[in-house]
Amino acid sequence: MQAENIKEAIQYRKLIDVLLDTNQYADLVLQGGYIINTITREIYEADVAIKGEYILMVGDASKLIGNKTDVENVKGKFISPGFIDSHMHFESAMLTCTEFSRLSIPTGTTTIVNDPHEIGNVLGVHGMQEMIKEAKTLPNQIYFTVPAAVPDAPGLETAGYDVNSKHMKELLNDPTVQGIGEIQSFSNIGPVYENAPELIDDLVASVSYANSIGRSVEGNAPALFGNELAAHIISGGAHVSCHETTTKEEMMEKLRYGVSVFMREGSSQRNMAECIRAVTEEGMDSRRAILVSDDMVPEDLLKDGHMNDLVRRTIAQGIDPVEAIQMATINPATHFGFKDVGLLAPGKRANIAVIDDLNEMTIDKVYLNGTNAAEKGELTIDLGTYTYPESVKKSVKRDPVKVEDLHIKASGSRAQVRSIVAIQDQNLTGAKEFNMNVTNGVVEPCLQQDVLPLIVVERHGRTNNIGKAFLNGFKLQGGSIAESVAHDTHNIIVTGTNYEDMVTAVNRVIAMDGGIAMIKDGKVVGELPLRVGGLISDELSGIELSEKIAELTRLAQDELGCGINVPFMHLSFWSLVTSPEWKITDMGLINVDKFEVLSPVVEQGGRL
Amino acid sequence: MQAENIKEAIQYRKLIDVLLDTNQYADLVLQGGYIINTITREIYEADVAIKGEYILMVGDASKLIGNKTDVENVKGKFISPGFIDSHMHFESAMLTCTEFSRLSIPTGTTTIVNDPHEIGNVLGVHGMQEMIKEAKTLPNQIYFTVPAAVPDAPGLETAGYDVNSKHMKELLNDPTVQGIGEIQSFSNIGPVYENAPELIDDLVASVSYANSIGRSVEGNAPALFGNELAAHIISGGAHVSCHETTTKEEMMEKLRYGVSVFMREGSSQRNMAECIRAVTEEGMDSRRAILVSDDMVPEDLLKDGHMNDLVRRTIAQGIDPVEAIQMATINPATHFGFKDVGLLAPGKRANIAVIDDLNEMTIDKVYLNGTNAAEKGELTIDLGTYTYPESVKKSVKRDPVKVEDLHIKASGSRAQVRSIVAIQDQNLTGAKEFNMNVTNGVVEPCLQQDVLPLIVVERHGRTNNIGKAFLNGFKLQGGSIAESVAHDTHNIIVTGTNYEDMVTAVNRVIAMDGGIAMIKDGKVVGELPLRVGGLISDELSGIELSEKIAELTRLAQDELGCGINVPFMHLSFWSLVTSPEWKITDMGLINVDKFEVLSPVVEQGGRL
Repeated sequence: MQAENIKEAIQYRKLIDVLLDTNQYADLVLQGGYIINTITREIYEADVAIKGEYILMVGDASKLIGNKTDVENVKGKFISPGFIDSHMHFESAMLTCTEFSRLSIPTGTTTIVNDPHEIGNVLGVHGMQEMIKEAKTLPNQIYFTVPAAVPDAPGLETAGYDVNSKHMKELLNDPTVQGIGEIQSFSNIGPVYENAPELIDDLVASVSYANSIGRSVEGNAPALFGNELAAHIISGGAHVSCHETTTKEEMMEKLRYGVSVFMREGSSQRNMAECIRAVTEEGMDSRRAILVSDDMVPEDLLKDGHMNDLVRRTIAQGIDPVEAIQMATINPATHFGFKDVGLLAPGKRANIAVIDDLNEMTIDKVYLNGTNAAEKGELTIDLGTYTYPESVKKSVKRDPVKVEDLHIKASGSRAQVRSIVAIQDQNLTGAKEFNMNVTNGVVEPCLQQDVLPLIVVERHGRTNNIGKAFLNGFKLQGGSIAESVAHDTHNIIVTGTNYEDMVTAVNRVIAMDGGIAMIKDGKVVGELPLRVGGLISDELSGIELSEKIAELTRLAQDELGCGINVPFMHLSFWSLVTSPEWKITDMGLINVDKFEVLSPVVEQGGRL
Repeated sequence: MQAENIKEAIQYRKLIDVLLDTNQYADLVLQGGYIINTITREIYEADVAIKGEYILMVGDASKLIGNKTDVENVKGKFISPGFIDSHMHFESAMLTCTEFSRLSIPTGTTTIVNDPHEIGNVLGVHGMQEMIKEAKTLPNQIYFTVPAAVPDAPGLETAGYDVNSKHMKELLNDPTVQGIGEIQSFSNIGPVYENAPELIDDLVASVSYANSIGRSVEGNAPALFGNELAAHIISGGAHVSCHETTTKEEMMEKLRYGVSVFMREGSSQRNMAECIRAVTEEGMDSRRAILVSDDMVPEDLLKDGHMNDLVRRTIAQGIDPVEAIQMATINPATHFGFKDVGLLAPGKRANIAVIDDLNEMTIDKVYLNGTNAAEKGELTIDLGTYTYPESVKKSVKRDPVKVEDLHIKASGSRAQVRSIVAIQDQNLTGAKEFNMNVTNGVVEPCLQQDVLPLIVVERHGRTNNIGKAFLNGFKLQGGSIAESVAHDTHNIIVTGTNYEDMVTAVNRVIAMDGGIAMIKDGKVVGELPLRVGGLISDELSGIELSEKIAELTRLAQDELGCGINVPFMHLSFWSLVTSPEWKITDMGLINVDKFEVLSPVVEQGGRL
């Protein structure tokens, strides 16, 4: 039994006193608002009475108003349970939990389920525990789902640490750890079964342990159907979610299979409008349809909001507002077994969003644990700032590279090379061969064909690997971009129009202890240090970071002529080996479906 | 970690092999039926493939059929997850778990949540553990929710053992114990708060402990609204059910308050038709509407069925069949957090009801853990019989009573007496005074006014109390009925037209080690030994017991002239002090709302 259980019991005992003793009163009453009832799917006028951190009751609270009760008139406004983001990564915003929360709380999001697998790839259990430590300093509810396997594809990439079933006990027994996060090691299930069946044994063992101590497991089943989808679900213990569902047909199949579909609707990938057709067109029961952001950049949080914006967009697709709010409140609470949030009812945590306009989802006020935490988009509580210890800030463990280290070599004057093909706004890639010039045994970047070297430099001090391939479609006109954000193992990924700028960019990232560097003609065009694991800044606020990213993006376009949207995020995803078709890791060019490493240069007489 | 977790992991690993290895096949395929999808609320044609105890997948299973696969053609039939009874008492049927299951399994019920608080009142932790032990021998899923407080009303009644927060650790850590059962000690919440606040502290402690180890808590909030309902919910940890909701207004209030409403629809009390109006008339989301039987007599199980009959009746109230089935499958599974049942999907337990006619809910076949367990209403597996140990069979611990012990005394020739008033088909009672003849200092039973002595004899060997009052409305013409079934403490309750037959009846119950005895003119008219805790027969099958009860009921009517329906069940409920207005315990006549003991005879000059 945890002390927090006992504390809750004591508070509950006091709530009973207030309800039954006619001489005791509520601390706060929100009077006369329109209650969003996420259980009955109704809206009706009622008061919400609050004592301490909890809701006393919802109804006619007049008897609970005493001399010292704070009465807030909310007539004409809509009173909703605070929103839940069921799957997201703080690392995607490059922000600390604190700075993310500073932007998120005023939008009505009061519960976050974070998957720290990025920092876990870099810093292992210690990195995740440091993030958990930070989250515990905050007043919003932050839960974690932790990876059962780091790296995603052992044998095809090098992470800073390995995480597997041996680490589950240490990780899962923290009360804020809700369970195992997206089991993406097993999303590409056919090839894994063929090539690395031992991973399945390890995953099933981790999942079984998690379930035995009452923890949940989240799936990740992009484009899986039928037997493969079934095998994925079972590998996750038969009660899983999927946040990579992109078509109506997938949505229908997964809901029918009992999967909680986390309709992803974040900064980079937006799947809700397609998924929701299973409800709007087919009339499916939406109890397991859930909204998640997955990846949010601070700019979008500032401009559009967080879960309130996802709800707004869902309403715009023709879903009734209360049903849309269910998808960000009671549906996820039920999926995870959170018993204290997701509805406004006696004994529930007083996490509340007061909404001005239901269709626009404009947030007037936010209450966290019974306390007014934000008004009109501004925090009214002090979150402080959070600085991470040095133990997570020296994560780039490698000496500078030399230009020869990056050279992609070939014999003769022309070479047939293998190139990843960028697809705008998608994680997945194409695969294509190109014929390229070779000078002094080195394949030259080719602006004409838009084919550039794409290289991953291991930076965890474990192998010193350098993986090499080519990239088509980045539309870079000059210079180089390197970054230590490169999913999911977060080695240093670099591309450029010449090897010299590439080596300078990589070495700049190493010198900064991680971050983003843009180099042109040997000079720094722009840079952003991300010292926490090479992923996160604990020096900039959300607004500052947002401005910095906007500046870097503008510089990438103006100075380097980069013609792709959100270039840093795109670059970072080309090493994610859990989505097809070709990706690059520190071990080389990876054919994702075949679990094999390909040479960047096609061998004499070789075929693709 | 339990061995069963590991066993499940091994089985899951094998399921993955079958799904992904093209040379492995399902054990069983139910081919071409209409799937009842309890998540999407759809019906569509598909196969169900099964391996061992689990469902492999639901869809096109043609690739999973090998030479040894058993293929069952179910075209034209409806394939549903097995039904869940979320709240019931085996003791109400007077049957062992085994004999109840023998009648229940063929009706499609595959999961039962039993509340053993009757045997717990008689035999304490040991009695409940003996029942749990029996349940573990059976192939259907039987969970338990155990009482946090025995007796319900300490100080107003004597149980065989006391159960309180001290016993929670011992009780709740069994894997089949789902949580704390109906917290009826706290249903009459106002008086408890006024008169016995220490019970609240104890209950909150038990609830908090249960929640801390992931166990659930069931409420019991008849006719509570507003602040009292809120206090009840909070006392149960804010995630509770109520199975005593009898009006549409109560249903609406409780659903709005987040309560899972267990719509009771058993042998004696039927509340669904009224409750369901919140859905049919008000359009409320039904996700927390759940069907339960609470109390079933074997005759009804044989004649009408179990949960299938409740679903049928719900459909008859205008609910779509799939929505009605949700109320007996996924809704309760979600309430309890059962992740392996309630839907047909990969990795779920292969507990399946094959339905011939959806509106009539006629059950063709039942599968339990992938095995055909029943066909056309007949078990196809051998359940064996179960005999309880002697330790639970000597529960009537008292010497025979003498007639003087039962006499209700008064001075003079007439007395004003207090009488419980029977209300047909209801647990609750009226309260009325009558003027009665007194002979030789003893109040005489009065057939003319239909006012008879109603007496409770303590039989747990703790106090030898004898509580006395009167009963109006039983319409007995002669003789006496006594039984050791008397909710919830199960002392011996007796009524009759003369004291001599009453004492003979009580002593017959004592001599049988518990049961029902009817005496007229000093002779046994009929009797039924219930040797397990004085509540259950482990000697009769369900059919035999049903016939015996029917025979006793007929004898009560024909020989004793009893004019009330189901006389034994009615008699047994007049000592239940958690429902108004007057009840009787071994401590005397109880004014339920005031928590006070009343004399059966109004004192000289006294007023009601």
